[in-house]
Amino acid sequence: MPSFTVYKGQKGGKVYKTETSKPELQGDQILIKVTASGLCGTDLHYREADQGIGHEGVGVVEATGPGVTHLKKGDRVGWGYQHNSCGHCQECLRGNETYCAERQMYGYANLDQGSCASHAVWREAFLFNIPDSMSDEVAAPMMCGGATVFNALHAYSAQPTETVGVMGVGGLGHLAIQFAAKMGCHVVVLSGSDKKKDEALKLGAQEFIATKNVKEIKPSRPLNRLLVTTSAQPDWEKLVPAFAPGATIHPLSVDEGNFAIPYMPLLANGLTVQGSIVASRYIHTRMLDFAALHKIEPIIEKFPMDESNINQAMDKLNEGNIRYRGVFVNQ
Amino acid sequence: MPSFTVYKGQKGGKVYKTETSKPELQGDQILIKVTASGLCGTDLHYREADQGIGHEGVGVVEATGPGVTHLKKGDRVGWGYQHNSCGHCQECLRGNETYCAERQMYGYANLDQGSCASHAVWREAFLFNIPDSMSDEVAAPMMCGGATVFNALHAYSAQPTETVGVMGVGGLGHLAIQFAAKMGCHVVVLSGSDKKKDEALKLGAQEFIATKNVKEIKPSRPLNRLLVTTSAQPDWEKLVPAFAPGATIHPLSVDEGNFAIPYMPLLANGLTVQGSIVASRYIHTRMLDFAALHKIEPIIEKFPMDESNINQAMDKLNEGNIRYRGVFVNQ
Repeated sequence: MPSFTVYKGQKGGKVYKTETSKPELQGDQILIKVTASGLCGTDLHYREADQGIGHEGVGVVEATGPGVTHLKKGDRVGWGYQHNSCGHCQECLRGNETYCAERQMYGYANLDQGSCASHAVWREAFLFNIPDSMSDEVAAPMMCGGATVFNALHAYSAQPTETVGVMGVGGLGHLAIQFAAKMGCHVVVLSGSDKKKDEALKLGAQEFIATKNVKEIKPSRPLNRLLVTTSAQPDWEKLVPAFAPGATIHPLSVDEGNFAIPYMPLLANGLTVQGSIVASRYIHTRMLDFAALHKIEPIIEKFPMDESNINQAMDKLNEGNIRYRGVFVNQ
Repeated sequence: MPSFTVYKGQKGGKVYKTETSKPELQGDQILIKVTASGLCGTDLHYREADQGIGHEGVGVVEATGPGVTHLKKGDRVGWGYQHNSCGHCQECLRGNETYCAERQMYGYANLDQGSCASHAVWREAFLFNIPDSMSDEVAAPMMCGGATVFNALHAYSAQPTETVGVMGVGGLGHLAIQFAAKMGCHVVVLSGSDKKKDEALKLGAQEFIATKNVKEIKPSRPLNRLLVTTSAQPDWEKLVPAFAPGATIHPLSVDEGNFAIPYMPLLANGLTVQGSIVASRYIHTRMLDFAALHKIEPIIEKFPMDESNINQAMDKLNEGNIRYRGVFVNQ
């Protein structure tokens, strides 16, 4: 019976260290010794919940259940938002298991554990091999942040000839710039101020627009696609002149309330608003391949994985001061 | 110099009869003797404007300009919302001339004439041959109403295996039901009350839901696509449970203000909101072919084309009492 350390949220928002134990490994379950965990904006929403924190996990296979078929002890693996799906519905059958009605995802299922932990037990079917050239701490933020932005581009057929806008230079945005640039796209970064301009250009952007004090946003080439990675919703009135006809808008951050955009420009310019959530396993593996090939890596800020550092890093993220993804590392 | 009767809007909203004259036909211009004009909801917006009324025109070629290449005197032709485009921009080059930045469309260009008229002068390039099996008065509502709903289905790759929702049984909706049904789709009609149920089923719907007094809308099969043809925006909270993952929503009617939809269901279900406007010429011709092949026809209410009938029909449309498309006919 595996027993291990997990870090959980609680009322009041102070993450605390505790122990959990699991039944003997069944079916294709795998016991992973966690080496690294990314810290994502979504985790802040679950600080106050009675659940294991973290969903960008990387580690090493320590033990395998009786039904495991291809992973073995010592393999480096990662996992993200999704832990399971039914396997037989239309969405599962067509490789869209992220939309399975019985999907098990962070925040809704398997609340006893997360990636902020010494170990975790997950189904082999929802674990990903980490490319040899990618370190554990670099791989961790790819499991949700990398998957989310790559999915918006790849699952919705971004073309290399497109002009792609990335709004927000944070955990998701700084990866989106790299992915889009390496796909061959003309990348335009939209950020409040000029503070992150140099970094954005270094990451592959051709153009940078500080949006705070402009009346309307008009890149040198109209945007065929925009990835919105900011936690606050953009000022759409300002943005309407930025789009090429038929442009696709990808809202990627979590928000309450409505998505609201001026109605007539939506119709008259034939815009698409495309909802999406992380990536199916097929696309997730393509993302890891592509990132390894092109050396796409998050810029990370490392913290030891302990109670005090988890809470400090979360506060820092909440204040918008992490550059650009926090990663907890087990020593 | 062609000179002819047009019906124009004016402040106060009373459409009046007047005369207009045009220079000698130039380039590929064609003088059309108008036989029929559809009456669309959009026309109500322009009643108060100083412009020719009507954008669903059908008639007979009466004279041809020096640059005309394929149409000839006596040909039956129709036209819709768009009169011209630049011909050399990216959108024109890829057959998306409806999104050309220099597009000339009803309400914005060529305000001296409309389809409520004895004659009109338009470019050959923006006229459509009417299929032999289609009468003038049946063809007229296809020029905008038919094109708009067919475009939503065809330009965005509706599959025959889809479940397609049609919200609203009016000028657009009653054509959308027929198109989707003949494409092989399972058609679910959403309407306020049961009043139009029999008609909707006769037009090809498999399912009809009266939405007014239900708490949430749950068709027998989840919707892969929804065409919103009502002038009022739907109650999205009620509709969220109706959608299959990855469903596409097509808002098709004109509205001011914002398009607003609950944010998290948009992401969590991977929904697409797809703006669009009428149809490119390529798709318009496919629409006419498909309609002729499958005998898809609007249900029309005929009015003689004169000042008094135009105003009466507009009032009737404004009250929601036209079943389902008004058509003005020149005797």
